[in-house]
Amino acid sequence: MKPSPEEIARANAIEEAKRINLPAGEPVPAFLQKAQALIPALVERRLTVRSLVEALPRPDLPLRFAMRALADGAELPQREWREGDVFIVDFGEHLAGYLSFRVSPTGSVADSPIRLRLTFGEVPTDVAEPLYPYHGWVSAAWLPDEVITIDDLPSECRLPRRHAFRYVKVEVLAASRRFGVRFEQMSAHAVTSAATVPPSLPDSYPEWIRRVDEVSQHTLRDCLQTCFEDGPRRDRRLWVGDLRLQALANYATFGANDVVKRCLYLFAGLPRSDGLVNGCVYERPVPTYADTTTLDYAALYCVTLQEYVAATGDVECGRDLWPVARRQIDCLLARLDDTLMFHDSGETWCFIDWAFGLDKSAATHAVIVFALRRMVTLAAALGVSGEIAYYQPLIEKMCAAAREQLFDAGRGVYTSGPAHQVSCATQAWMVLAGIPENAAVAQAALRYALSDPAAIRPITPYVYHYLAEAMLACGMQADALQLVRSYWGAMLDAGADTFWEAFDPLDPLTSPYGDIHANSYCHAWSCSPTWLFRDCGLGAPGDNKLETA
Amino acid sequence: MKPSPEEIARANAIEEAKRINLPAGEPVPAFLQKAQALIPALVERRLTVRSLVEALPRPDLPLRFAMRALADGAELPQREWREGDVFIVDFGEHLAGYLSFRVSPTGSVADSPIRLRLTFGEVPTDVAEPLYPYHGWVSAAWLPDEVITIDDLPSECRLPRRHAFRYVKVEVLAASRRFGVRFEQMSAHAVTSAATVPPSLPDSYPEWIRRVDEVSQHTLRDCLQTCFEDGPRRDRRLWVGDLRLQALANYATFGANDVVKRCLYLFAGLPRSDGLVNGCVYERPVPTYADTTTLDYAALYCVTLQEYVAATGDVECGRDLWPVARRQIDCLLARLDDTLMFHDSGETWCFIDWAFGLDKSAATHAVIVFALRRMVTLAAALGVSGEIAYYQPLIEKMCAAAREQLFDAGRGVYTSGPAHQVSCATQAWMVLAGIPENAAVAQAALRYALSDPAAIRPITPYVYHYLAEAMLACGMQADALQLVRSYWGAMLDAGADTFWEAFDPLDPLTSPYGDIHANSYCHAWSCSPTWLFRDCGLGAPGDNKLETA
Repeated sequence: MKPSPEEIARANAIEEAKRINLPAGEPVPAFLQKAQALIPALVERRLTVRSLVEALPRPDLPLRFAMRALADGAELPQREWREGDVFIVDFGEHLAGYLSFRVSPTGSVADSPIRLRLTFGEVPTDVAEPLYPYHGWVSAAWLPDEVITIDDLPSECRLPRRHAFRYVKVEVLAASRRFGVRFEQMSAHAVTSAATVPPSLPDSYPEWIRRVDEVSQHTLRDCLQTCFEDGPRRDRRLWVGDLRLQALANYATFGANDVVKRCLYLFAGLPRSDGLVNGCVYERPVPTYADTTTLDYAALYCVTLQEYVAATGDVECGRDLWPVARRQIDCLLARLDDTLMFHDSGETWCFIDWAFGLDKSAATHAVIVFALRRMVTLAAALGVSGEIAYYQPLIEKMCAAAREQLFDAGRGVYTSGPAHQVSCATQAWMVLAGIPENAAVAQAALRYALSDPAAIRPITPYVYHYLAEAMLACGMQADALQLVRSYWGAMLDAGADTFWEAFDPLDPLTSPYGDIHANSYCHAWSCSPTWLFRDCGLGAPGDNKLETA
Repeated sequence: MKPSPEEIARANAIEEAKRINLPAGEPVPAFLQKAQALIPALVERRLTVRSLVEALPRPDLPLRFAMRALADGAELPQREWREGDVFIVDFGEHLAGYLSFRVSPTGSVADSPIRLRLTFGEVPTDVAEPLYPYHGWVSAAWLPDEVITIDDLPSECRLPRRHAFRYVKVEVLAASRRFGVRFEQMSAHAVTSAATVPPSLPDSYPEWIRRVDEVSQHTLRDCLQTCFEDGPRRDRRLWVGDLRLQALANYATFGANDVVKRCLYLFAGLPRSDGLVNGCVYERPVPTYADTTTLDYAALYCVTLQEYVAATGDVECGRDLWPVARRQIDCLLARLDDTLMFHDSGETWCFIDWAFGLDKSAATHAVIVFALRRMVTLAAALGVSGEIAYYQPLIEKMCAAAREQLFDAGRGVYTSGPAHQVSCATQAWMVLAGIPENAAVAQAALRYALSDPAAIRPITPYVYHYLAEAMLACGMQADALQLVRSYWGAMLDAGADTFWEAFDPLDPLTSPYGDIHANSYCHAWSCSPTWLFRDCGLGAPGDNKLETA
């Protein structure tokens, strides 16, 4: 009896690993050495205090506070603060970096140390209201405050920990009554490995697009450190899912292509024992596994490698990492059922979105198909055409299986799981995977999910991105532009300097972590609009479709 | 009309300053350069955790807690701690220095930073009960706790701030639920500029004396840094009053004589505009004035210089600083009334003791006489005999004035101020100044004050020292030994590893600062018993008087 395609895939995954002598479950020194040789230099830029501000309650705004300037930043060194005093400084823009200042006694010599609490705010909420009591389920160690004690005044201080911030709240927790303190030369030292500033979009673009583009780039810039971090506040880690969107935005802007390469090698250098890449890895203190597998992210590793080779022409790297990408696909194929369908068993995490109750089987199936298509493209680029003949038929069969098992013909929508759940995420990935027979079916499925009040809505910019990418893939340019305007534009309206990790326009105070103070307000996966504008033609002034958006 | 002695003194103070071109109110670079050239090297000694301990309530003890060992310190690296856990380590002895450790995740990779609160305990109380809410009037910035956040695990940490401690309470304030932490290589790095360890007292001394001697030396060792600090916890400053006792203990033990010299030059290099030395100065960030004048301490500057020259034979330094010492005396003489008596106007601080309600006029008068006598001795040593002829008659007149105005012949005691207050401090200084006509009068005055329930009792080791020194000066060796036994010995009984800043045996929870957590439990001015034993013969086994104590 002839082996079935999935049997072939399983056998292939095992044989492949043996053939290339690629260990699993232990670090691959050759890959890690390449990754570490590519650690980029960081560029440091000093910012001075733009103004002293106060937070005003603004119930009409999504985050409920806005800042009002009280004085020019140049006045800070003239002011004197005493025990119990609190003030907030505004550096004028979001940054990832270090705070420094000189603190001097006034009125008398300092006859005691001083103790300060410094709270770093990415958004007004962080400094406008107390961080405690904290109600989140991720560790309170992420909260962006520090208590420091300075023994000898005057003193030059540079906090050793990097923070993500625009605002800093300074509380003089304790100082002797005999002296006050003055803060001089307060500076933020922004760091990034984005060494260039790309030209702005032409003036012919609408103002809002130019601003979304700029804020997207600032988001990417502040996440672009010695790797592509997901967020400079939290969790400062390299995730495959974030990396793909950062890499795309990066090709269109900063061109820090060696950092993408470094990240691809970091994942490759830390394979799990089952052969999959980790969902995320740590750079410090040494490159380390996170014990998180994310099946959709493993598929996206292949996509990211393909796009890297396409953007840079670095075929050598592509060939070096091809076995790693291939192993991802083979491992994922090995998880399909006899009908070539993927089912989320719950044993291994599929991310897709943070949306509560989301069924992820269909979307993950589609992500695998999406990745399979890119593997074929990559194989062609690398000249490993034998692999094309192997994967190509699987694409067709997986598409057919999805159409057969997931499509609800009555509603014109793809469903997921035994409860036939309809979600925006499922439709987006179905479209990107090329599963609908044609653009009309694709568009109808997207429109159905977007208009069905029972459909699971996205809550992260990550899924909003894939919705927009899917719309562009099936000719819904105007809808994509409207989506970007209504979603990323709403963050702008709320005062965003960088785009956020999580934002649900219908429930802006929600948090995937149970407390908005645990949210990251500069998060890599929300940086993609600059790619949509610059590489995908979204919003281009000459495009009639878009002017109607 | 012939000028009065005090008129001569005033004129002399002014002329002297002019003649020697010694500025007042601004730093004297030549002196400060000499001080800075004498900064000693610090010796570092690594201590490992002796045991994991818990604090047990002990209402019978002065500080109400005692430590019980739970496990050997070697077990610490085997233990795992999670968010919310608390433990206390004991390094086995008091030290001034730095804490270091390696912290590693257990169970899983660390997917968040960790936040720790570290509380440094000189005594069990510091770590047995919460430091907050704090009720003291000196700054809460002195409280010995730190909150630190560590981003990347495993991590090697060495806290940058120096602390004074034997115990460290570690609270894991926040860490992700996915991992625990293990503390490895936890070490204390004790620093001191005491480069030698003097031989112990011979076994022929009673055990309690040998222990008081040892604890005195540990107290001095931990205060002996780049200057003679008053206390390594608080306020880490160079005070004249503490310096004299430290210098005496030092000559008898560690012989860090150049540190005494450095301290004398620091005071000399920072004269106040009225010509007096500061009561205390700061070493860091650069040698700086404290805006504290302490009249009795200004007098003791002269005594300390005289004793330094006597101990070291460093006549060159003595001559260099003679004008500074002379200016102290001349400025103090200028404050006497027409009868050559000193009165505490309250305008300029006289320290004498922290005892509440203490009238300081008489004691300060006596300190000036004590210093005048030493000036005569110093002048002789330096060969400036012309000065002797000038000061010698003043001593006699000031003694006579004190006998006439302060002695209560009915009770045989010296009083102070308009309310004729009797205090132990006044008697001690009267005796040391040689004001009583003979030893019998001196002894009677001391005994009266010690037995009068209405007399103001000392509350600091500083005054207990001068009581003992006065007893030795008038032949009360047995009483001096009993005093040391009952006072310093009581601190030993309470578990002291170093002697405390303040200790009132009748009210051990009192604090000069309103909260015992603000007290320093290793304080320079309590280190003098080692000098009393080693240089003054107190407690010497061959001395019959003492064996009866």
